[in-house]
Parts: sequence; structure tokens; C-alpha cells
Amino acid sequence: MAETTLPLQSIAELSGLLRTGAISPVELLEQTLARIERLNPALNAYITVTAELAREQARLAESEIRAGRYRGPLHGVPYAAKDLCFTRGIRTTAGSKILRDFTPSYDGTVVVRLRRAGAVLVGKAGLHENAYGITSDNPHFGSIHNPWDLERIPGGSSGGSGAALASGLCSFSLGTDTGGSIRIPAAFCSVTGLKPTFGRVSRYGVFPLGHTLDHVGPFALTAEECGWTYAAIAGFDPHEDASIDRPVELPSAAETDLRGVRVGVPEAFYFDDLDPEVEAACRAALATFESLGAVVEPIQLPDIEELNAVARVILLAEATAVHQRNLDARPEDFGEDQIALLDQGRFITAVDYLNAQRRRRELCQAFARAFERVDWMAAPAVAVLPAKIGQKTLEIRGMRHDVRLATTRNARALNLTGLPLLTLPCGFSADGLPIGLQLIGDAYDERRILAAGMAFQEATDFHRRRPPTL
Amino acid sequence: MAETTLPLQSIAELSGLLRTGAISPVELLEQTLARIERLNPALNAYITVTAELAREQARLAESEIRAGRYRGPLHGVPYAAKDLCFTRGIRTTAGSKILRDFTPSYDGTVVVRLRRAGAVLVGKAGLHENAYGITSDNPHFGSIHNPWDLERIPGGSSGGSGAALASGLCSFSLGTDTGGSIRIPAAFCSVTGLKPTFGRVSRYGVFPLGHTLDHVGPFALTAEECGWTYAAIAGFDPHEDASIDRPVELPSAAETDLRGVRVGVPEAFYFDDLDPEVEAACRAALATFESLGAVVEPIQLPDIEELNAVARVILLAEATAVHQRNLDARPEDFGEDQIALLDQGRFITAVDYLNAQRRRRELCQAFARAFERVDWMAAPAVAVLPAKIGQKTLEIRGMRHDVRLATTRNARALNLTGLPLLTLPCGFSADGLPIGLQLIGDAYDERRILAAGMAFQEATDFHRRRPPTL
Repeated sequence: MAETTLPLQSIAELSGLLRTGAISPVELLEQTLARIERLNPALNAYITVTAELAREQARLAESEIRAGRYRGPLHGVPYAAKDLCFTRGIRTTAGSKILRDFTPSYDGTVVVRLRRAGAVLVGKAGLHENAYGITSDNPHFGSIHNPWDLERIPGGSSGGSGAALASGLCSFSLGTDTGGSIRIPAAFCSVTGLKPTFGRVSRYGVFPLGHTLDHVGPFALTAEECGWTYAAIAGFDPHEDASIDRPVELPSAAETDLRGVRVGVPEAFYFDDLDPEVEAACRAALATFESLGAVVEPIQLPDIEELNAVARVILLAEATAVHQRNLDARPEDFGEDQIALLDQGRFITAVDYLNAQRRRRELCQAFARAFERVDWMAAPAVAVLPAKIGQKTLEIRGMRHDVRLATTRNARALNLTGLPLLTLPCGFSADGLPIGLQLIGDAYDERRILAAGMAFQEATDFHRRRPPTL
Repeated sequence: MAETTLPLQSIAELSGLLRTGAISPVELLEQTLARIERLNPALNAYITVTAELAREQARLAESEIRAGRYRGPLHGVPYAAKDLCFTRGIRTTAGSKILRDFTPSYDGTVVVRLRRAGAVLVGKAGLHENAYGITSDNPHFGSIHNPWDLERIPGGSSGGSGAALASGLCSFSLGTDTGGSIRIPAAFCSVTGLKPTFGRVSRYGVFPLGHTLDHVGPFALTAEECGWTYAAIAGFDPHEDASIDRPVELPSAAETDLRGVRVGVPEAFYFDDLDPEVEAACRAALATFESLGAVVEPIQLPDIEELNAVARVILLAEATAVHQRNLDARPEDFGEDQIALLDQGRFITAVDYLNAQRRRRELCQAFARAFERVDWMAAPAVAVLPAKIGQKTLEIRGMRHDVRLATTRNARALNLTGLPLLTLPCGFSADGLPIGLQLIGDAYDERRILAAGMAFQEATDFHRRRPPTL
């Protein structure tokens, strides 16, 4: 079949064609598989391409749509699941050597719900080993490459989910975010990513990293499409102990009118050694929101270094609790960075951990108070541009920074809060590297940040640009 | 004023008299204060008697009731708050030397809510130091004595709350329960005690011990009156991060009909070295439930030793996190048992703690499954009879046991689950020592265990007996 640009179109465009029968899910899938075949060798976005299952699901979708049983905007649309989402009968590696041959006997709740929505699982996207890191430079499955510059990292840990979507190797994807793992690849690959409120989306059948920090969420080309995917996967699940039983709502058309909306700018997230191009793009985005009628004002938040320190203690401990048995039994099967982090986690005492959780509660109260003054906040998703693969440090305004710490600085802090976060493409560096803005919503208020993202994307076209090399 | 038996009457009786003006809250209070003056020296149930505040509140209640502004069954009724409930302007010691002179600037939520219900705070009840222990043998404020045998412990940590109520030194009281601290004194003092579901009653302004294990709840002479007090103090509180926003309901009259109700008997709680008199009384109580039409059947629960081991790891860590600073700075101000426990807590790693919390979630699922088969369960509240003050070990069926471990064995395990627990007087040993049964409800189902308690107390009179020595 001759390759077309069909897989580069957004769900909004595709679903119009699918619903009316102008294209078939089978045709869309074959186009996507052809594109994967051509581009995945360079990108390495997938660990497993599930062509057989996908063809079966696409044929089913085709027959359902023909029979008039249209399930909604995801029906017949190919997606990638990060390879730590359990898929029945399909190996699920978590990017690790330990789970290289692990084949779950059941689907994770998010996978079940997307099947119900009629979506077509096209593959399992690569990730940083164990989702514990942000480069997606994986020693067991190879580096994942940024489609905007193949020498650079796509961000992580959901690097494959971001890179596959940006390159048209799927039409949306699933990621997880424990310390920035949705927001960083969204920003670095120039796609839209939503980390919903803690408890909104079930993690049942998703390999854990940090029990009180892990979130599952979607990547899509637009905020509106993130909303559709979010609505499909969110909602109460008795199998998830952190699950929240609250109605899942999408924004109304009226909510995309931003006149009078109060936007907080947390100056703590615009520190002195922010990359100047990132800062310029994010400040320009704030001006766009002002031009749409929003009232932008500075807002006081807790010190970002303290937020990050507290989040690091919690994650170090929680991640080691997950991996300790394998770490003791098979240390040689872990990547070097994993050993370093997991060993650090052994030395956290329960008292340190609990004090961090206590401080976390106080810090969350400061966020809750800030939301009495503003409707949502906007901050750089990532303080820096994507590093080169293998690069350990980077320079900003003449200072050397550790790539990992600099890249997670604006992201990790917010996992403490459990608040919903929407990352939007908001610009490019002079070298053509993507820049992302994150909107920070109040608890359970995905609606307003999705509405704001829709308004922003109505006014800008950063989200429409595609990697030039592909 | 001549002393009468008025303070020995239950809230149901008193509220009838108070509402109609047959007695005044001031008269009831003075009778109670006179009784405290006479009996407290022997019992040591109170750390602070708040006579002045109580007189003010009683006068206010009197004028409100006279003016026809009757607030409900607690209006004008004297109560004792465990001395770790914050009381504005009144010292709150937590039974510790560290807080000997601590005077809070605000009332805890439960104290605020009882003031709104019109109750009269007559004093701050003594407790085991820091609520961390079950003897209430307090090195800073003296031993609290069991009104049924002054040489014996009243149980703890809420020993003063149990002893004061059993002796008519208040008409109801508040306690907290982290590993049995309501159920043990309820059983040992022969009063009714309710540990509500985790998250039901706010702990804001209550000195903490174990953040994920602490509960606040009432002691009263009957299950019905526990319900009234529970209804007054329960409900959502934005100041409490574990607070649950669910309607608080009391049983309907129809629910006290136990015909066809399925009662589970968790054999794990009726182990071989249960005190024979405790076992006999609890089995007789099961027979009473059967005679009321309930269907009693054995039910499988996780191993109680594992439940206790998991609960101990969690509490050791959480308690040390609370006290570490003072422990480092002023170790000489802690009792010996406190030092021993708090030092153990230092050695728990975060990984151990988190593994215990993970195991806890699995164990809770086993309880949830059990509730698919039964409406509630019934087990001995305490496996042994109250030890003598100072006694370190006790003998059951020829085996020596540590008093603390034996006394908490059936209680601590259940704090892991957060489930509601109602302790009912269900018998006496040959020596006249009280025995308690605990009803274990499903999450948020205080209603059915309260209804069962009401039915049981309708059929029995253990709860009407009073300590013979007073």
C-alpha cells in the first residue's frame, strides 16, 4: 500500500473520516504500520509492534462502524501503550531486562478501557528502564531518538510514547508520570500531554515506580484529543486503592473563552538559570493567554528546591521498595543508573520518608491556598532543551548542570501535589528544538486546563508543526 | 449539694430529664464534679478537671434549653476528652512530660463539634504516655486504676476515658485508637466504645501517634449513645487530609432486627491461647446473636500474627517520625517504655515501611472479600483479662505472655484495615473482671454494627452493671 500522510493527521480529522467510512480503520492501521516499518528503525520508539492484534482490532472496528455501532472519537484509531501497561498475551517489559520475557495474563484497566472505546493497540512504546529516568537511553532495548533531532533524547521516561506520536507512528499514546515522565517527552517531542489528578486514572495493571507519585495519562496532538483519551481511561476502579469516585468531565465550549480567567505565574518555576529560549517561549505563551483575555498575575508557591528534595526522598524510597528483591537477586540485570538510584533508596529511613510525606502535606496546602486566588497556573514544563543522547551535563547561562536534575526540575516538584498538569507545545529554539508549557490545574479540575489548552491551540500553531526530518 | 446516682445514668435517661427541665445541666455537672472529687483520687482518671469552663458551658446549656433551643441528646451532658484532644486555653499534655505545660490556642475539631452539640467538657482524661501503650501506667501523671479492681490496669491508651465513664465521672468520653486504645479500655472498664472507619472523624487538633493508624472515637454506656456521639463528631473536615466526605448515618429501628443477618466468626481471632473466660463470654455472645436470628458462620481472615507484625512495623516508624526531635533533644523526659519503642522505630527503613504498607493493602483486600459473605464479624476485643498495674507478663493456659503483646493481639491487627469496630461489654470473669466483644463492620458501615450492638444490649445487661467498689 502506498504511504500517505494519513497517520500524521489528528484524531479530530481521522475520526471524521472513520465515522463516515471515508477511510477504514484497517487502511489507517496499515498506513501506520508502514510508517512504523520505515521510521522506527531510526527512532526506536517501539519495543513491540502488535501488528497481528492491531489488525484484528482494526477489522472489528471496521465491521462495527459499518454496522452503525460507532463507539466515539477513538474508534478505529491506532495508539501506543507505554511498555509498562499490562497487555494480555503481549510481553510487557517495563524497559527492563528483568521483565524482558514477561507476558501478563491480563490487561491493565487503561488498556481495557481503550479497547472498549474501540481504539486499536498498534504497539508497546519504549521507555527509560523501569520508567526510572528521563533520557530513555535504554541499555537493554537501545536509545530512543528525538524525532526533531535524532541525536537528542526524546525525554522520558515515556520517550517512546512521545516520539511515536510526534512521528505519526500512532495517533495517540499512553504514558506514565512519576517525576515528569509525561511532561518531559511531551515538551521535548512537541506533543500535548495530560497528567490527570492523582486517583483519576487507575494504575491497576501498570508496573509501579512510586506508589504515591505514579500517574497514567495520555499524549495526543491537541488538548481536545488529550481530553477525549482522558475521558476514555479515567474514572473509578475498585482494583486501584488510590482510585477516586468522582465524575469525569470535559470542558464545555463556553469554558474555552478565557476572558477574565485568572492565571497564576509561579515565579518559583521561572528561576534565574532557566534556559533563555525556554523562558522566552513560555513568557510569550503567557502573553498569548493575556491576548485571549486572561488576567495573568504572579503567584507565590513553595520553594521549588524544597519540593524537589521532598519528592526525591519519597521516590527513592518507593522505587527501591518496588525493586529491592530483584536488586538483591540479580543486580547485574539492572542498568548502571538504576543501581545508583536504587541503592540510594536503601538508605532512606522510614522516619525520613514519613517526615517527607508530612512536609508534602504542608506543601500541598500551600498549593491549595494559591488556588483560592487563581484558576490555574502556567510554568515551563522543562527548564532546559533536550540534551544529546549520552550527554551527562548541560550548560545554561554559563553554569553546568546535571542533565537529569535540570530536566526534572520543573516537573518532579509537581508530582508531590497530585494536581492535573497539561503540557502544550509553545515554541521552538533557534535550532528547532521543541519547548513546552505546563498548565497546573486545581485538584480534579482537568476541565479548565484542557479548556485553556484548547483556546491556546486555537490561537497558535506550535502543535501543528511536524518534525522536519521525517 | 448531696450526691445522688444521677451521674451513673446513661445519656438516654439524662437527656430525657434535661430536655424537659426535670434536671438542669448545672445540677448534673455539680453532681458529676462532686463524684470526681470523691472518686478521682483513687482512680486518677483525670489529668485536668475543667470545672470553671464546664460551669460556664452548663449554664449556657441551661439557658438555651430553658429558652427552647434544645440541641439534641448531648445537650448539657458532661463529657471527658482524652488529654491529647486540643482544648483552647486548657493544657493538653498527651500524658507526656514534654507537653506538661502545653496549652493549645485552638480546639480540636471533635471538641468544636461537641461544643456545637451542647456537651459540657468536664475534664481532660488521663492516658498512657503519648497514647503509646496499653497500661495507662503513666510515669509523669501516675497510674490510672481500673474501677472494677483498683489494683488492675484500665487498659489504654485511653485508660482515663474508660475509667471515668465506668465510674460515673462523666456521661460519655472521647478516646483515640491506634492499636486498640479505644477497644482495650472499653473491654477492661465494661463500657461501649466505637472506633469509626478511618477518615470518618477528623484528627485535626488531636496529638498524633501513627498517621495511617490513628482514629478518634467515643465511649458511652450503650451502643445507641456511642452512635449519638459519633454522629456529633463525624463528618468531613477540610483540615484533615484523611477526611472522607460521606454522609454519616445512624441505624434505623428496623436495622436492630437481626433476623437473617450474616455474622462472621473470624477463627483467626479465637486462637488456642485465648483466655478461657474471655473465650467463653465471647462464644456466649455469639449464641445470643444466634438467638436473635443472626446466622453465625466461620469466616477466613488473614493470619493475625502477620496482621500484627505489619501493624507493628508501621506504627514503630510512624510514632518515631512524630517524636524524633524531642527524643533526640530530651530523651530524659520520656518514660522507659517510650524510649524502647521509639528507638526501635529508628531502625525501620523506608523500604521495610513501604513493604509493610503494600502488604497492608493486600491484607485489606482479604477483609473486603470476607465482607462479600457476611454483614459484620464478631471477635474478642482483647484476648486476656486486665493485668495488675506493674505486671509485665501474664499466664494463659500455662503459657507466659508479655502483657502488652497479649493485650493488643486482637486489637492492633484491625487498625490496619481502618474498618469500624464496636466494643460491647459481654461478660465478666469469675473474679468480676470485664470482658468485651468487638464487632467488625465493613468500611463506612458503622450503622450495622451499631444496630447489632443495640440489639445485643436490648437482650443482655452486661452494659448496665457498675463497678461494685464505687
